[in-house]
Amino acid sequence: MANFCLILAYDGTRYNGWQRQGNTSDTIQEKLENILEHLYGEPVEIHGSGRTDAGVHALRQVANYHVPRMLSRFSCQEIQTYFNQYLPLDIRVLSVSKADSRFHARLSAESKIYEYRIDCGPIANIFNRRYLYRIEEPLNPQKMQEAASYLIGTHDFKSFCANRHMKKSTVRTIYDISFELVDGILYIRYCGDGFLYHMVRILTGTLIEIGMGDLLPTQLPTILESQNRALAGFTAPAQGLFLVEVHYPEAGE
Amino acid sequence: MANFCLILAYDGTRYNGWQRQGNTSDTIQEKLENILEHLYGEPVEIHGSGRTDAGVHALRQVANYHVPRMLSRFSCQEIQTYFNQYLPLDIRVLSVSKADSRFHARLSAESKIYEYRIDCGPIANIFNRRYLYRIEEPLNPQKMQEAASYLIGTHDFKSFCANRHMKKSTVRTIYDISFELVDGILYIRYCGDGFLYHMVRILTGTLIEIGMGDLLPTQLPTILESQNRALAGFTAPAQGLFLVEVHYPEAGE
Repeated sequence: MANFCLILAYDGTRYNGWQRQGNTSDTIQEKLENILEHLYGEPVEIHGSGRTDAGVHALRQVANYHVPRMLSRFSCQEIQTYFNQYLPLDIRVLSVSKADSRFHARLSAESKIYEYRIDCGPIANIFNRRYLYRIEEPLNPQKMQEAASYLIGTHDFKSFCANRHMKKSTVRTIYDISFELVDGILYIRYCGDGFLYHMVRILTGTLIEIGMGDLLPTQLPTILESQNRALAGFTAPAQGLFLVEVHYPEAGE
Repeated sequence: MANFCLILAYDGTRYNGWQRQGNTSDTIQEKLENILEHLYGEPVEIHGSGRTDAGVHALRQVANYHVPRMLSRFSCQEIQTYFNQYLPLDIRVLSVSKADSRFHARLSAESKIYEYRIDCGPIANIFNRRYLYRIEEPLNPQKMQEAASYLIGTHDFKSFCANRHMKKSTVRTIYDISFELVDGILYIRYCGDGFLYHMVRILTGTLIEIGMGDLLPTQLPTILESQNRALAGFTAPAQGLFLVEVHYPEAGE
């Protein structure tokens, strides 16, 4: 089997997330697989590095798919051109490359970076308004940064997981959370080995509540330890969230 | 009369341009005037620095309005807050200030800067796609720059005016045209004392045809001299055009 690795960007606004679902046709995975089926003449399954939720965007999502060598008559450039010709304008294939046969976009991923963008300037941003979460109340980024320091490291993030019946481990490692405030927009970047369902959005909602003074930074360890979703903050809306990049141990891409 | 000066930003996508028109309600001027009428309790006319066409955006449009002193009981901050509370999210008032009584946003304007944004990268930009004109064919920015040098100065720009029955002078002065290519996006900035109807878009369309090799840079003087719209290039679409700023001789703002 030939194994192809894709780097993708998409505006998640009008999609029902990454994952193909039985009854809807508006998922990123389905858009891609439909094009692959046309290209190769048979169904091809595509694996994303992870599922992005409805409305979440991606700057460099990674995916891969296998095709039997006998079907694999197209070059990487041809595959990319074919995708970008037939995909809607809010999904683009940034690159196509041949990958090691063992490479799997999700299972091989070592770490991921997500970014949450908050518009907290004095006047709401117009031209990026679809990709920002607007907050009118004043935010204290120093308090948010102080709170974020409690999240770094390996913890059970059950309090920050929307799936109440999660049977698998809710232990994850956050390597870094960085903050940058540029032109009234606060960028929060989360780097970790993986993220639970809604985890980045609940972390962000909690940090926002801290930034607004509704919670104290020093309450974060208690929230973490409680393993109780109800103690964490609200789920920040999807429109401000971007999957930035996915790292792999070697040049599997 | 008190004279107030506004700096405005808007996403022109869903508007029928700046100027209030009898039969439509989707112009920027009308949105602003409706709010002023609510604020002051009587109709107030607002003067823009110039009319932007349907679909054209503004980063810093300037406008002013007069109100009788007896009605002028609101501070600049109150006026700004009121506007931003009631305006749709694609129009924002960036500042409100008191102006000299003789200040007029259009008549006092000394020069204007427009910017046209062309997406000519290898892969179409996703997140700014509403504000870019996408070109798939390769462009030669050097040729465009060479051609632009013929446009600098005072000329009769009749060939670049969409109004065939223009009775007023079609002589304008272009002070500068600059090019910047960043991440696959070509930004063309036009600075001039004023621009005719569709002039920036026709200039851009002509430069694009030169960049694609359909016209030669050295043909520009002939096109200018012909005073014939048919010899110039196509009208580049509105969505890539931004009014960037308006300059006034003194601190009239």
